[in-house]
Amino acid sequence: MGLGITIWNEFRHEKENDAVKAIYPDGIHEVIRQGLDDLSDSGEFSLSCATLDQPEHGLTPAVLQQTDVMLWWGHMAHDEVQDEIVEQVHTRVLEGMGLIVLHSAHYSKIFRKLMGTACNLKWRAVGERERIWVTRPGHAIARGIDTCIELDSTEMYGEPFGIPEPEEQVFISWFEGGEVFRSGCCWRRGQGKIFYFRPGHETYPIYHNPAIRQVLLNAVRWAKPDGHNPEPRYCENVRKPKEDIRNS
Amino acid sequence: MGLGITIWNEFRHEKENDAVKAIYPDGIHEVIRQGLDDLSDSGEFSLSCATLDQPEHGLTPAVLQQTDVMLWWGHMAHDEVQDEIVEQVHTRVLEGMGLIVLHSAHYSKIFRKLMGTACNLKWRAVGERERIWVTRPGHAIARGIDTCIELDSTEMYGEPFGIPEPEEQVFISWFEGGEVFRSGCCWRRGQGKIFYFRPGHETYPIYHNPAIRQVLLNAVRWAKPDGHNPEPRYCENVRKPKEDIRNS
Amino acid sequence: MGLGITIWNEFRHEKENDAVKAIYPDGIHEVIRQGLDDLSDSGEFSLSCATLDQPEHGLTPAVLQQTDVMLWWGHMAHDEVQDEIVEQVHTRVLEGMGLIVLHSAHYSKIFRKLMGTACNLKWRAVGERERIWVTRPGHAIARGIDTCIELDSTEMYGEPFGIPEPEEQVFISWFEGGEVFRSGCCWRRGQGKIFYFRPGHETYPIYHNPAIRQVLLNAVRWAKPDGHNPEPRYCENVRKPKEDIRNS
Amino acid sequence: MGLGITIWNEFRHEKENDAVKAIYPDGIHEVIRQGLDDLSDSGEFSLSCATLDQPEHGLTPAVLQQTDVMLWWGHMAHDEVQDEIVEQVHTRVLEGMGLIVLHSAHYSKIFRKLMGTACNLKWRAVGERERIWVTRPGHAIARGIDTCIELDSTEMYGEPFGIPEPEEQVFISWFEGGEVFRSGCCWRRGQGKIFYFRPGHETYPIYHNPAIRQVLLNAVRWAKPDGHNPEPRYCENVRKPKEDIRNS
Repeated sequence: MGLGITIWNEFRHEKENDAVKAIYPDGIHEVIRQGLDDLSDSGEFSLSCATLDQPEHGLTPAVLQQTDVMLWWGHMAHDEVQDEIVEQVHTRVLEGMGLIVLHSAHYSKIFRKLMGTACNLKWRAVGERERIWVTRPGHAIARGIDTCIELDSTEMYGEPFGIPEPEEQVFISWFEGGEVFRSGCCWRRGQGKIFYFRPGHETYPIYHNPAIRQVLLNAVRWAKPDGHNPEPRYCENVRKPKEDIRNS
Repeated sequence: MGLGITIWNEFRHEKENDAVKAIYPDGIHEVIRQGLDDLSDSGEFSLSCATLDQPEHGLTPAVLQQTDVMLWWGHMAHDEVQDEIVEQVHTRVLEGMGLIVLHSAHYSKIFRKLMGTACNLKWRAVGERERIWVTRPGHAIARGIDTCIELDSTEMYGEPFGIPEPEEQVFISWFEGGEVFRSGCCWRRGQGKIFYFRPGHETYPIYHNPAIRQVLLNAVRWAKPDGHNPEPRYCENVRKPKEDIRNS
Repeated sequence: MGLGITIWNEFRHEKENDAVKAIYPDGIHEVIRQGLDDLSDSGEFSLSCATLDQPEHGLTPAVLQQTDVMLWWGHMAHDEVQDEIVEQVHTRVLEGMGLIVLHSAHYSKIFRKLMGTACNLKWRAVGERERIWVTRPGHAIARGIDTCIELDSTEMYGEPFGIPEPEEQVFISWFEGGEVFRSGCCWRRGQGKIFYFRPGHETYPIYHNPAIRQVLLNAVRWAKPDGHNPEPRYCENVRKPKEDIRNS
Repeated sequence: MGLGITIWNEFRHEKENDAVKAIYPDGIHEVIRQGLDDLSDSGEFSLSCATLDQPEHGLTPAVLQQTDVMLWWGHMAHDEVQDEIVEQVHTRVLEGMGLIVLHSAHYSKIFRKLMGTACNLKWRAVGERERIWVTRPGHAIARGIDTCIELDSTEMYGEPFGIPEPEEQVFISWFEGGEVFRSGCCWRRGQGKIFYFRPGHETYPIYHNPAIRQVLLNAVRWAKPDGHNPEPRYCENVRKPKEDIRNS
């Protein structure tokens, strides 16, 4: 049984907007799934998808338990994600599940809950050139990526990005219009690893790009649990000290 | 007008428990206020207190606006703090207000919201010795503190502490019973600085201790806003690029 | 007596190159000194300069002892700085002296010694536009700085920059030619604070720019010692334990 | 061909001191090698050892090229390690070679060069109890380790430890005599990963301990290169910009 990978997608733009449908006829999740399937070793991953409009958003306790790494794409309906489900995804991250947060999911409930900050940014959607520079050569997530990834036409995201200081800065983007953005950022929360990756607006075929697909493969491999230590997530009263206490 | 300091205290144990009342007859907040008043320069601070059972927990918009640094002590009634107030305190931290989180407030709604993690720990209340070692000599919060602070009788907190990696580790505690704990930790969230400081259980006269009072003074001075940059906390659409964009 | 500030400059280009001499007739250090003198409060700083060709590079033990914050500019003669002097500056940083490392000093002996990495980067000197974006609003070093600083004509520095992960990322630059760079980075080493600030090539009048002068003032104020804890920098044998040890 | 692992040992105490010889008759390196050999998967590692008194300290260019992860133990003869060899090891770390720094090697030339700080600490050798607490459950290096590792008799290392802030704090030690110490610390420098692990004094059979052996196995697996990006370590002049520059 391969590593359990769940690709979660809001899956609304693709149904409502013909331009998006033309790029992602079966949904953004399906193109990401296909990319991971094509590039991974045989049997390495057990890939599945879940979407907002499924019962429990497709994230039942059984699905969550089987998920080692989750990818999350959302944009227009962040508020429709039920708080109880966000709570359960959050718990799984603290238990060790990796989470890859994609593009506009910087504003998802789960990412904001994990970061504790506003997670805001500046944006512009006019189709401009982006260069995603590798700032951390040798990092697992940059494996096989050249000096920079160039996207000919994309939405711009600009600084300041309202996040805690990244623990590892893997990519920084340059935009034709004059802005910069921290496009690839790593954090650890509890036993789980989190990677935010900027590219991926629904109106551009970003997830068809070979270099972007490679980064997603790398990110999933990086984010997988490293081995779980069975620690409680509540406050344990350890009544019996290991050492004698004189005044007790 | 001095720096606006608000000491927030749950103020329940002191009313309900005689042993606590004996140590903090007017409340923990009053002893902390007195300590800051005694040690600060004249006119340096404008000190006030707020407690859970006041309307809006004493944290009206006017109070929040005048607060540059807030100290937070809570223990038995974290859940009674209204979410709307927590939301407003959170916003103020992102705007630049410093927050000093004390002892059992590791489990407060505001700290957990800012950290994004479980914030759990291990504990034991048998009255054992603690040594709080300075791990970051030269840090503003360790100013005037010797190699370690010794507390003869205190509650134990033990690792693992469910927090994001501290950005600055100022103190680590040794406990007689055999545990260690990251007792002094710094983070930045948005434009605000956060300091967690472990000592301070209600049944021990910790906040009467001169070294602990010195650390609180240092922490307040460290946490004050460094100067506000007027950035929105929403996502701004910057339609007009600074540079010409060829294909638009 | 104000805070002791020493501006160290290699001071070679200004003597050998007429174009540089035209911009910095009395040396880069003199323009930086003037800027700090103009913007600081009266009596806040005690400013002095030191240059490579002075005896001991102008960094005698007496000068080093009186220096609370040092600014360092070098480019063509890094190798001529004596290792013994570098050793003494390094010791002062570990004792708490702040160090502001300017532009091409990314390759100075002292910066490389403090970072432990290659400190290499990519560069191009064709006079292109740079935008230095504030990525950490509210940071002391960004005080009074707008969303970004624009320099019309400058040398380019590009990623990857061979540094340890910055502890605080204050600025990131955009370049007209297509690159990005982490232009404002903070670290702490020992009891000292270090700030690297990218702008400042000798053939451009960067240090005459009001926003750049403001950043240098902010950086000096940020980098000043926060209060010294008298810790040895050797390994101390603490023979007498604080607690009884059973088997000894 | 397995991952190239080189265990470097000063190998002096074992020759000169009978007590040490009794614990490590063939040298500390041999016991570490045996531990890695016993616990690793068949064919996973290609293990070899090198010692100070070999020509070039056993670290020829060929050996260095074949080394993916190096373990380093030294104590009494740090100064005898030639600077040119240290330079070559340093270069290999920046290229991606992992480095596991053991116990008294906190004072080795290579660790101090990578950290840029004094790397000093406090110590006491009376044979006291140590508890090494896991502060980062779920970390690859803590895999299979219980809440804490207990060593009955060991040398004490105490804070403050003169290091840059660890990027990941995996272990913190408690000592019977009253001190604490950051015993397991991670950093990245260039493309290489560095792990410092405290236990291991020559007069105690620490490297025979099953939990310590497990940590060393975990650390080697964690520190292995994640995939190399071919970046220069010098400053490259990229004359031709990717974008047109107006004024050039």
